[in-house]
Amino acid sequence: MTRQQLIEQIYTKQSYLCVGLDTDLSKIPPHLLQQEDPVFAFNKAIIDATQDLCVSYKINTAFYEAMGLAGWQAMQKTVAYIGNNHLTIADAKRGDIGNTSTQYAKAFYEALPFDAITVAPYMGEDSVKPFLEYADKWTIVLGLTSNNGAKDFELQTCGTQLLYEKVLQTVATWGTPNNLMFVIGATQASEFVNIRKIAPQHFFLVPGVGFQGGSLKDISETALLANDCGLLVNASRAIIYASAKEDFATEARAIAYQYQQEMATYLK
Amino acid sequence: MTRQQLIEQIYTKQSYLCVGLDTDLSKIPPHLLQQEDPVFAFNKAIIDATQDLCVSYKINTAFYEAMGLAGWQAMQKTVAYIGNNHLTIADAKRGDIGNTSTQYAKAFYEALPFDAITVAPYMGEDSVKPFLEYADKWTIVLGLTSNNGAKDFELQTCGTQLLYEKVLQTVATWGTPNNLMFVIGATQASEFVNIRKIAPQHFFLVPGVGFQGGSLKDISETALLANDCGLLVNASRAIIYASAKEDFATEARAIAYQYQQEMATYLK
Repeated sequence: MTRQQLIEQIYTKQSYLCVGLDTDLSKIPPHLLQQEDPVFAFNKAIIDATQDLCVSYKINTAFYEAMGLAGWQAMQKTVAYIGNNHLTIADAKRGDIGNTSTQYAKAFYEALPFDAITVAPYMGEDSVKPFLEYADKWTIVLGLTSNNGAKDFELQTCGTQLLYEKVLQTVATWGTPNNLMFVIGATQASEFVNIRKIAPQHFFLVPGVGFQGGSLKDISETALLANDCGLLVNASRAIIYASAKEDFATEARAIAYQYQQEMATYLK
Repeated sequence: MTRQQLIEQIYTKQSYLCVGLDTDLSKIPPHLLQQEDPVFAFNKAIIDATQDLCVSYKINTAFYEAMGLAGWQAMQKTVAYIGNNHLTIADAKRGDIGNTSTQYAKAFYEALPFDAITVAPYMGEDSVKPFLEYADKWTIVLGLTSNNGAKDFELQTCGTQLLYEKVLQTVATWGTPNNLMFVIGATQASEFVNIRKIAPQHFFLVPGVGFQGGSLKDISETALLANDCGLLVNASRAIIYASAKEDFATEARAIAYQYQQEMATYLK
């Protein structure tokens, strides 16, 4: 999915919502556990219930890897089921020396047909470049994350900047706003004005609203781009675990609808 | 495998060699491709040929993920085949917010029975802690890596230190030399004296000898600990692709034997 196609989807649906499929066997409604593939059954129901309200799905690979082979298979079926009308993100936080990152790119852009993958920047340019070499794919590099641990390194002073600022500035020179996004946690609202100055055109993937407490309003008021939107705001647990009963998909839709309605007001 | 058991293995075998199983279908001897599971067949032959010369095997997960389900299955069979007499390392470079790192820990310490996993430090303490909570397992955090990209962030000044120095010092407070190691690239020999001062007791997992050009001699002379060794030196491509013909296992053994013999001289 190109930047232009993504922007069109956003304005058509009046939504920049990404639904995070952090699917955990211990949290899905018990009646699904009798299904042959409970994880896929859950994901399918969530996708069916939310697909007109969001422009993207983010699969947190850790939850699938924790289930071994069956998990990897459920991930495969889920990304195939989502199809081409939503931006599919492998939230995988990969990154290694060049020849290894090339293999990760194959894993998530070829063996699994994702549009995008999240990448950790610590190992520098040759660990990120192999992902950027795929013409029609997106590389989403960690900038400032939503968790408390962000203070340990990301928010430390590095030369005349904070480390995450240096990461944003440096990584921005490796790609373009057409193939590169940044992860910016929603809980870091006080930094958003500054971050938008450093990366005035890039899309930000923003996790951390809902369960982690970030404010959709604050983020949108400080970082939304006038015509290109430039934001994908992700909610995972707040949507997919809105109910643990048989009505889970209906309740997930209700929460996704609230996000979409609020987003529509900011897009105007 | 505890620190004491690992040290015993090292002095018994007179080796601190880790063999890296970066198994790539396009590089293994063509006659294996007719096997039902060529990757496992290759790994099994390499393990059989080297197991008395090394104390550890490192599986580079990227190469397995790139093959999709079949790759994940080959990884499962390989780690089971290695068994309990070698330290099994998932070279996976994972790390995410706490509840997600917990899932990665489940994936590699439970669903797959690895002894150790490599972890990226960028996201800070709560992204690393879930791995350290497993009593009998090892967390191997990236310090200074072997690739050229290390200069982009790891070798940048951060306050009064380099970033990687800050990472080593900070992360060392989260675990102990009994459950925490660091990745230090063999190509960074000029930094080894300094690194050993910062982490005087920890084991270092050292990739980058062989194909990447790091010197076993330089590393051993500067960072080997008097009684505890404190080093696991990894070679992947130099050993497993020593020959692309039917004699690949014999040739792999020959290279592993050279490393072991050299290591024996440094252990004395």
